[in-house]
Amino acid sequence: MKIDVISAETVQNSISMTRAIELMRDAYLALTRKEVDVPLRTTLVNENGTVLYKPAYSDSEKIFCAKIVSVFPGNASQGLAVCPGVIIVNSAETGMPVAMVEAGYLTALRTGAGTGVATDLLSARDAKIAALFGTGGQARHQLEAMLAVRDLETVFVFSKKSENARRFCEENRDLVGNCQLVADPDRAELKRCEVITTATTSPTAVFSDEEISANCHINAIGALGKDRTELSHQTLLGSRIFVDERKACLAEAGEICLMRKAGLLPEDFRVKEIGELLASGHTPPVSKTERTIFISVGNAIQDLVCVAELLRTSKPTQTFQI
Amino acid sequence: MKIDVISAETVQNSISMTRAIELMRDAYLALTRKEVDVPLRTTLVNENGTVLYKPAYSDSEKIFCAKIVSVFPGNASQGLAVCPGVIIVNSAETGMPVAMVEAGYLTALRTGAGTGVATDLLSARDAKIAALFGTGGQARHQLEAMLAVRDLETVFVFSKKSENARRFCEENRDLVGNCQLVADPDRAELKRCEVITTATTSPTAVFSDEEISANCHINAIGALGKDRTELSHQTLLGSRIFVDERKACLAEAGEICLMRKAGLLPEDFRVKEIGELLASGHTPPVSKTERTIFISVGNAIQDLVCVAELLRTSKPTQTFQI
Repeated sequence: MKIDVISAETVQNSISMTRAIELMRDAYLALTRKEVDVPLRTTLVNENGTVLYKPAYSDSEKIFCAKIVSVFPGNASQGLAVCPGVIIVNSAETGMPVAMVEAGYLTALRTGAGTGVATDLLSARDAKIAALFGTGGQARHQLEAMLAVRDLETVFVFSKKSENARRFCEENRDLVGNCQLVADPDRAELKRCEVITTATTSPTAVFSDEEISANCHINAIGALGKDRTELSHQTLLGSRIFVDERKACLAEAGEICLMRKAGLLPEDFRVKEIGELLASGHTPPVSKTERTIFISVGNAIQDLVCVAELLRTSKPTQTFQI
Repeated sequence: MKIDVISAETVQNSISMTRAIELMRDAYLALTRKEVDVPLRTTLVNENGTVLYKPAYSDSEKIFCAKIVSVFPGNASQGLAVCPGVIIVNSAETGMPVAMVEAGYLTALRTGAGTGVATDLLSARDAKIAALFGTGGQARHQLEAMLAVRDLETVFVFSKKSENARRFCEENRDLVGNCQLVADPDRAELKRCEVITTATTSPTAVFSDEEISANCHINAIGALGKDRTELSHQTLLGSRIFVDERKACLAEAGEICLMRKAGLLPEDFRVKEIGELLASGHTPPVSKTERTIFISVGNAIQDLVCVAELLRTSKPTQTFQI
C-alpha cells in the first residue's frame, strides 16, 4: 500500500481561511441534507487525556476519513501540542488507506472556518466590535475567521492570564490589518461586543449574562466534554441556539447536556442546524434584535471536506509504502 | 510528530503463531477482567464495501490503538487486498500518534491465534482430524493455528470452488509437516472431524447439523455482518457457545443476531467468554462429550497486544515526520 503524507505546512499553504469558510458551507449543507455519514465519535480516556476517533464518509467526495485527535492538557508543559492528531483517508472505491494528513493545523483552520460561517449568518452585518475568550491553539483561526466575514474595528482579547492575552495580541497583529486588538480589557467592554467567540477549556461560564448585550452573536467552540460549558444557563436560555449537527450537539455539547441535567430544557427545546439556515437561503440582519449562539462540538465532515480539497489541489509532502 | 511505520514483513518476521497464541491468551484474559477499554467498533458502508474503525486502550500496555480495516470484496478482481488496513498507535502518556502498522497480515495472524486459543481450550486433546472451510485471506493462519495446538494428522479443506481448495493445499504444504491436507474431500468426511474452522464470507450455514459429529469443536470466525451466519440455527442451539467478547458478539455476530431475530434464543441464553475459561484454569478434555463453538467477531484488543509486542521487540521499517 502506498500512503501519501500531507504535513501541517502543506495544509497551511493549500487552504486559505476564505476557502475554508466556503468548504464549511458545503460541509454544513451536506450534513443537514444527510448526504454524508458521520457516526458519533468514539472516545477513549486515561488519566492523562482523551483520544477521539471521528470517522466520516462522503459519497460525493469519494473518501472515507477518520480523524484521530488527542486532548492531553499536560503536553503544554513539555512543549508538545495539546491536541495532536492525524487524519487517515481511505478510498471510496477500494477501501485502501491512501493518505495521512496532519490534523492539528487543519482542525484549528476548519474550526475557525465553522465560526466564520456561523458569524456570517448570525451576527449583525455591520458588526464592528468583537471579543475573543481564550488564547490557546484555536484562537488565531477564530480571530481570522471573524475578520474574514465582518469588517471589525476592535477585538477584545480575554484570557485567564493577562500576559497570555498580551502575548496573543502581539503574535497576531499580522492578521488584523487596521483592526485594533485589545489585550485584557475592562470587562465592561463586553457589553459593546456584537460578536463573542469562546475558545477556552473552561468548565464554567466565562462571562455572566449581565455582562453581554441582548443582541450579540456568540460562538462557543471550546470546552470539550459533557460536563463543561463556556456559557451560563441564563445566557443559553435567553438566546436562539444553532449547532453544527443536532445529533452530535444534543449528545455531546456540555452547554446542552448540563442544561438537560439541571432540568432546564423546556419541553419544546429545539436547536437549528447551521445547514438548515444555509439551505433556507437565510441572509444575516444588518442590525440584530435577538441574541444568537452557535455551539459546535466539531464534526468529522469538516475535516473530510478539507482533506478532499487537499487531495484535489496539493502535492503530498511525501509518500511511503507499508 | 515522528511516526514509525511497521510493514507487514516486519510483523511477519517479529511474531510467530506460537507467540501470537500466547499474546491472545493475555488479550482474552484482559478483556474478561475488564482491564482494557474496547468500545464497539464503528462501521461506514458504501456500495463497494465496509470500513471498520476499531479503537482500544490498554493501561498496562501503555498505548491507544485504532485499527482501520476495509472489507471490499471487489478488490480481489483488481489484484488488491480484500481487507486492507492499518493500525494507528497513540502514546498513553502524550496522546501523540507514534506508529502506523500494516494491519492485513497482523489481522490474519491474530485471528488465527484466537482460533488457536479456543481450539486449545475446547477441542479434544487427542484431536487428529480437522476441517477448514474457506481458502481466502484468513485461511492460512487458521490452519497454522489449529496445527500449533493439536497434533493433526488430516485437515480437509473445503471451498465453494474445488480449484481454490486444491490451490490452497498446494500453497500451504510448507506449513503442515506430516499432516495430510485434503482438498475438496467427500462431504461425508466432515462427520469424522474433531475440529472445524469456518473462515468464509458465506451468508448461510456452510454445513448442516446432520453432517457433523455431536462432539466436535467449531471455530466460526468469518462472515462479517449481523445478517450472515456460517452455522445453522440447529448447530448453534445444539452446542455450547463461547465468544471472544460477550458485548461485541451479542451486538454484532450474525450467528447470534439471526437467532435472536428468528426468536430462537432461549430465555436463559448465555455465552461464555474465552477469557472466563482461561481465568477459571480450565483444561481441555482428552475426549469430548459435547459440541462446542467459538464465535469471534474479532476484537481490537487482539490487535493492540500484537502492536505492543511489535513496539517492544522490533525496529520500525521506516520513520517519517508529519
